[in-house]
Amino acid sequence: MCSRGHHDRAGTEDQDAARVRGIGEFELIRKLETQLPSATRGAAGVGVGIGDDAAIWTPEPRLEAVITTDTMVEGVHFRLDWTDWSSLGHKLLAVNLSDLAAMGARPRLATVALALTGDELIADLEQLYQGMGKLAEAHGVVVAGGDVVRSPYGLMLTLTAIGEVDPDRILRRSGARPGELIVVSGTLGASAAGLALLGNGQEDRATTASLLVAAHLRPMPRIALGRLLGELGATSAMDLSDGLLGDLPKLLEASGASGEIDLDAIPILPAVRALFPDRYHELALRGGEDYELLFTIDPDGFGALRERAASIGATVTTIGRITAQDESSRLWIIRDGQRQQASEGAFDHFG
Amino acid sequence: MCSRGHHDRAGTEDQDAARVRGIGEFELIRKLETQLPSATRGAAGVGVGIGDDAAIWTPEPRLEAVITTDTMVEGVHFRLDWTDWSSLGHKLLAVNLSDLAAMGARPRLATVALALTGDELIADLEQLYQGMGKLAEAHGVVVAGGDVVRSPYGLMLTLTAIGEVDPDRILRRSGARPGELIVVSGTLGASAAGLALLGNGQEDRATTASLLVAAHLRPMPRIALGRLLGELGATSAMDLSDGLLGDLPKLLEASGASGEIDLDAIPILPAVRALFPDRYHELALRGGEDYELLFTIDPDGFGALRERAASIGATVTTIGRITAQDESSRLWIIRDGQRQQASEGAFDHFG
Repeated sequence: MCSRGHHDRAGTEDQDAARVRGIGEFELIRKLETQLPSATRGAAGVGVGIGDDAAIWTPEPRLEAVITTDTMVEGVHFRLDWTDWSSLGHKLLAVNLSDLAAMGARPRLATVALALTGDELIADLEQLYQGMGKLAEAHGVVVAGGDVVRSPYGLMLTLTAIGEVDPDRILRRSGARPGELIVVSGTLGASAAGLALLGNGQEDRATTASLLVAAHLRPMPRIALGRLLGELGATSAMDLSDGLLGDLPKLLEASGASGEIDLDAIPILPAVRALFPDRYHELALRGGEDYELLFTIDPDGFGALRERAASIGATVTTIGRITAQDESSRLWIIRDGQRQQASEGAFDHFG
Repeated sequence: MCSRGHHDRAGTEDQDAARVRGIGEFELIRKLETQLPSATRGAAGVGVGIGDDAAIWTPEPRLEAVITTDTMVEGVHFRLDWTDWSSLGHKLLAVNLSDLAAMGARPRLATVALALTGDELIADLEQLYQGMGKLAEAHGVVVAGGDVVRSPYGLMLTLTAIGEVDPDRILRRSGARPGELIVVSGTLGASAAGLALLGNGQEDRATTASLLVAAHLRPMPRIALGRLLGELGATSAMDLSDGLLGDLPKLLEASGASGEIDLDAIPILPAVRALFPDRYHELALRGGEDYELLFTIDPDGFGALRERAASIGATVTTIGRITAQDESSRLWIIRDGQRQQASEGAFDHFG
């Protein structure tokens, strides 16, 4: 156990006062809460909020509630020399909202658990809350409290998000059927390209590079599109966090179906093709962290969906089709007219 | 960043197969889920559960929903040489259920985020889930999924619990009024005494010592009592996690009230008095982690409450009274007929 006692730190009293260890846990929570936009600190029917034993809200009648939790660990999910704190707060909320989007849900509230070493600057954590607060405000999410604990080893952030969805419009992974289209939103590989640029120290090389870095650091959860999918009868959906070749097999397995995708149909930004001419397909197939939606829909419904999606600024692209009801759940990739079985490529934390 | 690559570990393939790093994240989640009693793996109206993007449940009509999150960090909240894994799983859920008890809520579901080094034995994590599952079953809680991530630094466990409560029976910290009694459930100081025994290597000294260690390792959340308090008109409540002198001032501050407690009235186990003759009061006042309920109630209602509490096997003891509506929220301790102002003593992770 590596406690950080007073004896092993350099730094003056003044510097300590700017860091987490210089103030109490309760004062820190109060300081962070003030960084949140007022609309995200509670509203009618939502939020005893920070300060009572638990947060409280009034579920909307006749809706189902949906809950998801994601943890981000320093050195595993983010590096403090690659991200700014505001982006980190944004992403912590975004990856959870993306899970709610994949269920077709409208987000309502979030709780945050911060595990801190004590060395963190208070101003940095305020930035974290500002980044989180801004995204929360955009999606009508109340940040309804949480927990702050000491972590001797490194920064670890856990967020739990709760949303609501009409039971008739819930998106699950298990509804894909033969003949349906396989569709993705946005483009794939930009986040992985941004990560590669950060790894190469190339993040400031060009405006296009900044765009890709932003895709990695500040993904946008597809909440409005997810709700549209529920309304317009998408038969299955999930969000793309582990890469297309990691995630699509999960959807196929949940549906008991096999499918095929056309490599050339996958939407990839010109910037990704230009900066990574030798491996843009790999980035798009296995890169991960795109936080786009992957879904299936009957071909007859696709035209209307594409139009409605365009009206909310979302693009959707057909990349393949469900070929068979098939418990072995195979995924085929068509490339240059050849059809070959895909090897799985999920990002596995321990694999 | 300290990654644990294959090159820097001793150990055979066989040993690896028994550890988290030897299997995939998804296989691990499946293995853990099978450790849960079937009733805690989803029921009518609850739980897409592990495997979809989020868990889902149907809120009970006309009830408020309550959510709480607590994180436990290795080396800060627990030591693996002091706890067994089953107790760790029990406690992770118990500390969260205690927060729901303090709101008067009935628990419904929980999600778990595990941050693992990869060195953990799968069998140990199965024990963790067994301990959690047993407590979940006792309280009708569904463990509805979560997240497993790699943590290069140490084990970190976050649990989020959700419950429901009749809006007319919610317990808050803010309702204490002059003339009301200050009451605690159970006894105080047993958990801190157990921790002290573990620290001294005395945990096996006697049966009474084991009892105290169990109070520390396996606290029992006062769910039934919390619901009774809501029904019988307790005016404020919270759970005791940071010690009486840490928590009671929070209740007084939330209520805008001052109060006094009688030192001799505090319920303390004979075993705590016997094993710590010089500091049993300190353990009871500042020890923390009792996870008993602290609440206020009109004296006219106390008799009925005590009777109903006894019928569910809970003891409640009056330790003081609310003396004034008073924004300065002072707490007085009466000892040997002398009345003196208490110094605050919250357990502060960074103080």
